Amino acid sequence: MDKLYVIKIGGNIIDDEAKLASFLNDFSAIDEKKILVHGGGKLATRMAEKLGIGQKLVDGRRITDAETLKIVTMVYAGFINKNIVASLQAKNCNAIGLCGADGDVISAHKRQHPVLDYGYVGDVDNINKYLIKDLLEKSISIVFSPITHDQQGQLLNTNADTIAQEIAKSMGELYEVQLIYCFEKSGVLLDINDNSSVIPEIRPYYYEQLKAGEKIFAGMLPKLDNAFTALKNGVSKVIIGKAEELPKLINGIAGTAIIND
Amino acid sequence: MDKLYVIKIGGNIIDDEAKLASFLNDFSAIDEKKILVHGGGKLATRMAEKLGIGQKLVDGRRITDAETLKIVTMVYAGFINKNIVASLQAKNCNAIGLCGADGDVISAHKRQHPVLDYGYVGDVDNINKYLIKDLLEKSISIVFSPITHDQQGQLLNTNADTIAQEIAKSMGELYEVQLIYCFEKSGVLLDINDNSSVIPEIRPYYYEQLKAGEKIFAGMLPKLDNAFTALKNGVSKVIIGKAEELPKLINGIAGTAIIND
Repeated sequence: MDKLYVIKIGGNIIDDEAKLASFLNDFSAIDEKKILVHGGGKLATRMAEKLGIGQKLVDGRRITDAETLKIVTMVYAGFINKNIVASLQAKNCNAIGLCGADGDVISAHKRQHPVLDYGYVGDVDNINKYLIKDLLEKSISIVFSPITHDQQGQLLNTNADTIAQEIAKSMGELYEVQLIYCFEKSGVLLDINDNSSVIPEIRPYYYEQLKAGEKIFAGMLPKLDNAFTALKNGVSKVIIGKAEELPKLINGIAGTAIIND
Repeated sequence: MDKLYVIKIGGNIIDDEAKLASFLNDFSAIDEKKILVHGGGKLATRMAEKLGIGQKLVDGRRITDAETLKIVTMVYAGFINKNIVASLQAKNCNAIGLCGADGDVISAHKRQHPVLDYGYVGDVDNINKYLIKDLLEKSISIVFSPITHDQQGQLLNTNADTIAQEIAKSMGELYEVQLIYCFEKSGVLLDINDNSSVIPEIRPYYYEQLKAGEKIFAGMLPKLDNAFTALKNGVSKVIIGKAEELPKLINGIAGTAIIND
């Protein structure tokens, strides 16, 4: 099976022009098939502020109302996505930018919750893996914005981590998939205050030990649980680390690799 | 050769939710291969106003400065493009929304002018007709926003009429292409004040007669010149008419057909 990298970057990279350019250089240099999933960043928030659209929070959770959806569609699927694609083209990396509605590539449904209405937030139902494969086989890298659709004409705001995971799981049937989550830290840390305490590798038994000993920062647990879920569902390896260290993450000399036994 | 329709719609349809929905119904119902090119509409202007970005005009021509480019990228390639695609998906028309940077599908260069700097405005250099064909052959319709790129990382604002024409010309090598320009009027009028004076068909000799007799509204001449250029470059037929009459335009019972002898 061919290798496929599914790489997720967040706002900390998107908001920093120099970091983004450097990351895209490293991304372009990957010889194997690759998919980039990007989150949002501060531009959407700044745009909403300028337009006088207040952020709706319910129980500390962000709600995507109609006006917010409009802004994230513009900023994520338009501005950020198309600028990343244009930058990659300049680096001789043929790329195509898609949201979930394009080619029906990620369908979702509006989140159902007994009490809360999250607004136009989508939970993923299906990945059209054959269209993705067709593009990858033409040596086109795909850049996904975190916007999906419900097949009924409604666009939906969707978590970029989740999109990366769902794509990685689906593509696992066709490729040897490595899912790379880029975030602020150098990897999963044994000591949250010590950036040099990166755990190089976590396997299921060690993860149970770490959890039992409450050695891992609580905010890290959902990411790790998701990583093990991905591994159970067709993904070969999950790597967590810094976007600035992408080549090292791929070569296994930085970040934390999460691996099944 | 298979038939391919390249259809251009402008702001008058995009700005009118009911008209757009009805147009997209008619577009979805076309059995043959099809491409939609959309222009902008008032949303970009309204967005610029709200954000306090003034429109730059030089000699009556709109200039695309960096802030304006940002807005048109957000509005055209993001909001309008993705909403059209999501609507088409709901109508069982599998569609993919692209700007010129996606798959390097439309490359362009920043417009050169001896005196004027138009800003980030692109004139089309090349259409990647094989990617377009690959998608069409998978029964995917393509929705183009009027944003191109210069292959050096710069997005460029490009006239939607021109994009439609360049795509139609390129695809003429692979398909029997009909290029349909939708605008406010029912077609080319003999009397600009009489909407019932539509000229059903214009061939080169008749066009010369019309021009010599100054029978055609001057604003129409560039459109017609472009139409004849398209016909000389591989397009089978150009049709000019109202978006509301799309099925009739296709069946040849409304609008003006421009045809070579």
